Amino acid sequence: MTEKIRVGIVGGTGYTGVELLRLLAAHPQVELAAITSRGEAGMAVATMFPSLRGKVDLKFVTPDEAGLERCNLVFFATPNGVAMKQVPALIEAGVRVIDLAADFRLHDEAQWEKWYGMAHAARDYLAEAVYGLPEVRRDKIRGARLVANPGCYPTAVQLGFRPLLEAGLVDPEHLIADAKSGVSGAGRKAEVHTLFSEASDNFKAYGVPGHRHLPEIRQELDDAAGCKVGLTFVPHLTPMIRGIHATLYARLRGDADLQALYEKRYAGERFVDVLPAGSHPDTRSVRASNMCRIAIHRPQGGNTVVVLSVIDNLVKGAAGQAVQNMNIMFGLDECAGLDQIPVLP
Amino acid sequence: MTEKIRVGIVGGTGYTGVELLRLLAAHPQVELAAITSRGEAGMAVATMFPSLRGKVDLKFVTPDEAGLERCNLVFFATPNGVAMKQVPALIEAGVRVIDLAADFRLHDEAQWEKWYGMAHAARDYLAEAVYGLPEVRRDKIRGARLVANPGCYPTAVQLGFRPLLEAGLVDPEHLIADAKSGVSGAGRKAEVHTLFSEASDNFKAYGVPGHRHLPEIRQELDDAAGCKVGLTFVPHLTPMIRGIHATLYARLRGDADLQALYEKRYAGERFVDVLPAGSHPDTRSVRASNMCRIAIHRPQGGNTVVVLSVIDNLVKGAAGQAVQNMNIMFGLDECAGLDQIPVLP
Amino acid sequence: MTEKIRVGIVGGTGYTGVELLRLLAAHPQVELAAITSRGEAGMAVATMFPSLRGKVDLKFVTPDEAGLERCNLVFFATPNGVAMKQVPALIEAGVRVIDLAADFRLHDEAQWEKWYGMAHAARDYLAEAVYGLPEVRRDKIRGARLVANPGCYPTAVQLGFRPLLEAGLVDPEHLIADAKSGVSGAGRKAEVHTLFSEASDNFKAYGVPGHRHLPEIRQELDDAAGCKVGLTFVPHLTPMIRGIHATLYARLRGDADLQALYEKRYAGERFVDVLPAGSHPDTRSVRASNMCRIAIHRPQGGNTVVVLSVIDNLVKGAAGQAVQNMNIMFGLDECAGLDQIPVLP
Amino acid sequence: MTEKIRVGIVGGTGYTGVELLRLLAAHPQVELAAITSRGEAGMAVATMFPSLRGKVDLKFVTPDEAGLERCNLVFFATPNGVAMKQVPALIEAGVRVIDLAADFRLHDEAQWEKWYGMAHAARDYLAEAVYGLPEVRRDKIRGARLVANPGCYPTAVQLGFRPLLEAGLVDPEHLIADAKSGVSGAGRKAEVHTLFSEASDNFKAYGVPGHRHLPEIRQELDDAAGCKVGLTFVPHLTPMIRGIHATLYARLRGDADLQALYEKRYAGERFVDVLPAGSHPDTRSVRASNMCRIAIHRPQGGNTVVVLSVIDNLVKGAAGQAVQNMNIMFGLDECAGLDQIPVLP
Repeated sequence: MTEKIRVGIVGGTGYTGVELLRLLAAHPQVELAAITSRGEAGMAVATMFPSLRGKVDLKFVTPDEAGLERCNLVFFATPNGVAMKQVPALIEAGVRVIDLAADFRLHDEAQWEKWYGMAHAARDYLAEAVYGLPEVRRDKIRGARLVANPGCYPTAVQLGFRPLLEAGLVDPEHLIADAKSGVSGAGRKAEVHTLFSEASDNFKAYGVPGHRHLPEIRQELDDAAGCKVGLTFVPHLTPMIRGIHATLYARLRGDADLQALYEKRYAGERFVDVLPAGSHPDTRSVRASNMCRIAIHRPQGGNTVVVLSVIDNLVKGAAGQAVQNMNIMFGLDECAGLDQIPVLP
Repeated sequence: MTEKIRVGIVGGTGYTGVELLRLLAAHPQVELAAITSRGEAGMAVATMFPSLRGKVDLKFVTPDEAGLERCNLVFFATPNGVAMKQVPALIEAGVRVIDLAADFRLHDEAQWEKWYGMAHAARDYLAEAVYGLPEVRRDKIRGARLVANPGCYPTAVQLGFRPLLEAGLVDPEHLIADAKSGVSGAGRKAEVHTLFSEASDNFKAYGVPGHRHLPEIRQELDDAAGCKVGLTFVPHLTPMIRGIHATLYARLRGDADLQALYEKRYAGERFVDVLPAGSHPDTRSVRASNMCRIAIHRPQGGNTVVVLSVIDNLVKGAAGQAVQNMNIMFGLDECAGLDQIPVLP
Repeated sequence: MTEKIRVGIVGGTGYTGVELLRLLAAHPQVELAAITSRGEAGMAVATMFPSLRGKVDLKFVTPDEAGLERCNLVFFATPNGVAMKQVPALIEAGVRVIDLAADFRLHDEAQWEKWYGMAHAARDYLAEAVYGLPEVRRDKIRGARLVANPGCYPTAVQLGFRPLLEAGLVDPEHLIADAKSGVSGAGRKAEVHTLFSEASDNFKAYGVPGHRHLPEIRQELDDAAGCKVGLTFVPHLTPMIRGIHATLYARLRGDADLQALYEKRYAGERFVDVLPAGSHPDTRSVRASNMCRIAIHRPQGGNTVVVLSVIDNLVKGAAGQAVQNMNIMFGLDECAGLDQIPVLP
Repeated sequence: MTEKIRVGIVGGTGYTGVELLRLLAAHPQVELAAITSRGEAGMAVATMFPSLRGKVDLKFVTPDEAGLERCNLVFFATPNGVAMKQVPALIEAGVRVIDLAADFRLHDEAQWEKWYGMAHAARDYLAEAVYGLPEVRRDKIRGARLVANPGCYPTAVQLGFRPLLEAGLVDPEHLIADAKSGVSGAGRKAEVHTLFSEASDNFKAYGVPGHRHLPEIRQELDDAAGCKVGLTFVPHLTPMIRGIHATLYARLRGDADLQALYEKRYAGERFVDVLPAGSHPDTRSVRASNMCRIAIHRPQGGNTVVVLSVIDNLVKGAAGQAVQNMNIMFGLDECAGLDQIPVLP
C-alpha cells in the first residue's frame, strides 16, 4: 500500500489518546492529520506529553478546524456520550470511525441508556456498529463503517471465557469474573480517589453493585454461549499504572482437554498467547504491548476451572486494539505498527 | 496487673518479627526479655531495624543464650519447621508458646506432612495446639499452652466466610476465595520474584494448583459449616507492602438479611468492623492496625453473595493477632497494646 | 494534669487534618471538641476517613457551629490564606492557635505577600507569631498565643543545616538543599500531576526557579548563621506517599568533629536522632512517626560536607510537630501522644 | 546494508541483558546468534522472560557452545570482572566487543583496581578501549575494536555537565551531582535491600563515602574541563523501576546564555533533547527509550546553575547506548532499532 491512511483523533488529552498517538506516530502506514481538544486548542501535543517530543509535531485544534471529514478514519478517544453526537455526520461524509468509548458497544438501546444515564443520540447506528473484538468478529470489522472498540475489562474477560462458552463446557449460569485493573484505567481526570497518595500502597474493590462493563461483558458472553449467562463481575483497583488481570471461575459440565481447547481456539491469533499448562501470567509480560496472555488451571483436579487472562488496559484494552481494528478495516497486516515488545522490567 | 509478662521471641529478623517488636515494645504489660537469631547474634536489633532506635535496646542472641525457659511466653516468628523442634521442651518447662508459623495449624498430621514436605517433629502437640482465631475460639485460647497463630490469608478468608457458613446460608460445596496480598506476605528473604523491579507495577496470581493456606482454610471452614466444604482458593501478589483483600463468592441457598447477620455475628468484636451496606473497604483503612473490615454485597440482587474482607497481613494476619492471643491467654484487656489507629494516607 | 485540653481543628479534610486526627484521637490529654469543613459539614469524619472508624466520633461542622472560641487551642489545617482571617478573633477570645499553613511563618510582610500572591489579612500578628521549631525556639513556644508551624521541607532542611551554621563552620553563601518529598506533601486536592498514573514510577524536580519554602528556609538559616545566607533549594517529587529526604551540601571553612558537633547540638532532643557515622537514613525509618534522623558525611575527606536528613512530612513536617508544639504550650510531656514507633516495612 | 550483523550476548539473565534482547530482537539489521548463561544453559530465553515469547526463540547456552568467535560483535552484559577475562581472545579472533560492565571504563589501572577490588586481567586493553559516549567520542567509536559502554549515572551526569565544562563557564573545583536512580539500576540479583517491601515507599542515599561511578565520572569530566575537577557525587535509591534523574549544581564564573549553549552543543544529537527554558523533565518522559532530556536553570538569577538531566538507566544508561554504539561501529543509521517512543503513562 503506497498511500497512507489519513487519520484524525478526537479527544487526545487522555491516556487513551496519548497511547493512540504513541502507536500511530510509529505506524508505517498512517498519516496523523489532526487531533482535537477544545480545552487545549493551540497547544503543541508534545508540550502536554513531552514523551512525544520529536515524534508528533501536531498541535491540538478545535473540532471545527480539524477537517475531520477529509480523513479516512477518525478515532474517538472521548468521554462516553461525545462520539454519538459527531459520528453520524462523519459517516455520512464517508469517513470510517472507531469509537474507543462506550457509545456503540451495546446493541440494546434501553440497556445503554440505563447504564450510561443519558439518552442515546445516534440510535440508528447501534445496530450497524460492529463490536470490534478481532478474535471474534474479524470479518465484520473488515467492512465496517463504525467499530465500537471493546472496553478493557470486557476484552480480558471475553478472551478468557470465550473458548469455554463456545464449546459449551461450563455452566453458563454461574460465571465469576474477578478483575483487577491498574489505575490508568480510570483515566487522566483529576479525582481524589486516583491520587497517588490514595491509590498507592492500597487495594480495593469498587462497583460491586454494578459496573458499566457488566452489560457489555454479558452481551458478548451471551453471544458466545448462545444463551443468557449469569455473571458476577467484581472489578478492583490495583496500585500499578497499566495492566488488567482477570481471574475467571466457571464450573465444568464435563471433562475436556482445556489446554488443547484454548490452543486450538487461538491458533493463528497473533495477539492472544496461550501459555503452557501451569503458568501464571504477569501483567508486566504484556506491558505496553498489544498481547493478551492466558493460562488455564483446574485446581486439585476439581470441577472448577480457573482462567487467568492479562492485557495492558491501554493497548489491547484500548488503543492497541483500535489500531488492530484499523489494520483490519484497511486491509493492512493486522500487526502493522503493533510489534512492540513488552517492556520488562 | 502489676507484674509484666516476660516475653521471648525466636526469630526476629523477618517482617513478622520486626512487627512483633513494634507492637510489643509499646505494650504496657510486656517485658521484652530476649530475641534470638543465629545469624545475627550480637547485633543490636535497632542496627538492623533503625525504626526501632530508642525503642528496643536488645541485641539478637543465640537460642542458647536466650534463657527462653525463664520467659512466661515465647513467640516463634520462624520459618515453618523450626518451632516444632523447640516447642516441646519449652512447654515442658512451663513456658507458653504462640507459633506464628504453620507448624501447629493443621490437626491432621498427614495433611501437614503432605503440604509442608517434611515429617512433623512434635506430633503429640498437634491435638493440643489451639488454632488461635480469637473471634472463633476465645475460650480455648485463654487456657492454651500452645497457640497456633492463623495464617494471613486464612484470617481474612475465615472472618469473611464464617457467618454465612455458620448460619448454613450458602452452598458449602462451591466457595471461591480470590485473595490479594501485599508483598510483605512473602517475607524478608532475598528472592528474585519479590524484588522491587519484579513485583512493582505488576500483578499476578500464584499457587493456583495449590497453596499451603488451602488446607488450613478448608479445615476451619469445615468447622464453621459442620461439613466438608468445596473451596477454590486463588492468591495473587499485589504491588503494595501491606494488606490482604479477600473477595469471597458463595451461592445463597435462601434469603436472609446478610448485613444484619454479619453485624450480629461480630457484635462486641473489637477487631472486626462490619461496614455499612454498599461499602468497599480499602486495605489502607486497616494499615498498621489489628482491624479486619468486612463488607457484604449481593450484586443485582442475585443469588451470589460477595464478601470483601481486608486486613493488614502483618498485624491481624500475623503479629497483631499473636498479641491479641497473648492478651487473652494472660487475662489482659484484649486490646492492650493494639490500639494503633491505621496510618492513612 | 487532670483536665484535658479542649481542641478544635479548622479544615480537617486534607492529609494534614486526618493526620492530626490520628494523633490527637490517641493523645491522652486531649479532648477533640470540633472539626470544621464547610464543604463536608454534617458528614461523619469516619465516613470520609474509614481508618478513623471507632476512633473519632465527630462530624464535620461549619465554622459557625463549631464553638471554636470555647476551645483552649485551635489548629488550622487549612490552605494558605485562611487562618490569617480567623486567627485574630480567636486570639482576642483567649484561644491559642497553631497554624499548620504558611500564614504566619514569614516575619517580613512584603516577602510573604510576594511569595503567596495576596495581601496579608493579619499583619499585626506576624511579629507576635512564634516560628514553632521546638529544637530552636522551645522557650518562646511555651508562652506563645500563636505558633506558626514550620513547613515540611523547612523542618528537614533546618534541622540538617543548623548545627553547621550556628557553629560558623561552613561558608554560608553557598548552601545547597536538594530535597525529595513524597506525594502527600502536595495535599489531597484533585490535580492531574499528582494522580497515581502521573506520579508513580516517575521522578522530577519542580519549582526550581522558586518555591514558597525558599524564603522560609532562608529566614531561619539567616537566624542560625547570624547573617544572610546564599541558598539554592531544589525540591523533587518522589513516588512514595510519605517522607522527605533532604540532601544538604555546604563547604567547610575549617576542620571539626562534625559527628560530635551534631550529637552535642541535639543531645536531649527526643525527636532528633543523630545516626552513627557512615549511616544513610531511609525515609521509612521515620514513617508515621515524629522523628527526624540525620547523618553527616564528608566524602573522601574533602571540604564538602553532606548532611542527610529525613522526616515524615505529615508528622515531624506537619501534624506531629504541631502536637509537639501543643505539648510545649500546655506544659505537657513533649512526647505525649507522639510515641508511635515508625511503621516498617 | 544487506547482510545482518551477527551478534552474541554474554550474560543475558540480568536486566541489562533482557533489555538488550528487547532492543536487538526488533533491530532490522541484527541477527541474534547466541546468548550465554552458565546457570541457565538449556532454558529458553522466553521461559525466563515471558515478555519475549514469540520474539526471541533462542535458548541460553554455555560459553563453550556459543560460538562467539563467529560473531561480528559480542555484548558483555555480565558482572564486573567477567569481560576482562574473555575479551582478549575474542578480539584476537577478530570479534568486536561492547562491554556494558565497568571492566574497560577507567584508563588508570590503579584506580580501577582500587575501586573494583581486584586485579585487572586485561591491562593491555585499557588504553585501547574507547569510552563509548557517542555525543563525545563518535569518531573513535566508529573504528573501535573494544567499546566500554558508560555507566548509567555517568551518562546522565556527563551529558548534563559537559557543555558547561567544555565552555569553561563554571568553577570546576566545586561540582555537585545529586543523582537519583530507579531500583533496576541495582540489577536482578536477589538481595534484601532491593526487595519490594524494602525499596517501595522509601527513599535513601547510599554510597556517600564513595561510589564506583565516581572515578568514572571524574575521569570524563576532567576530560571535558581540561583539568582536574572537584566533584561531590551522591546517589540515591528511588522507588521506581526505571529512570535516573541527575540534579547538577555548579558555580558560574561569568555570564552566558546557558540555554543557547546547550542547544548548540547538542544540535544534531538525536538522543539528547534540550528542553525549553523553565522546564522540569520527568523521568517517565524517557521511559523505555534512548533519550536524554536536559533542562537548565539559574534560580533567582544567582550564580548557581542547576542542570536537570534524565535518562532511562536501562536504555541510554545501558542497553540502548550499547546499541547506539553498535550502530556507529557498523556504519548503520545511529537510530536504527532505537526509535521507540517513551511509554507514558
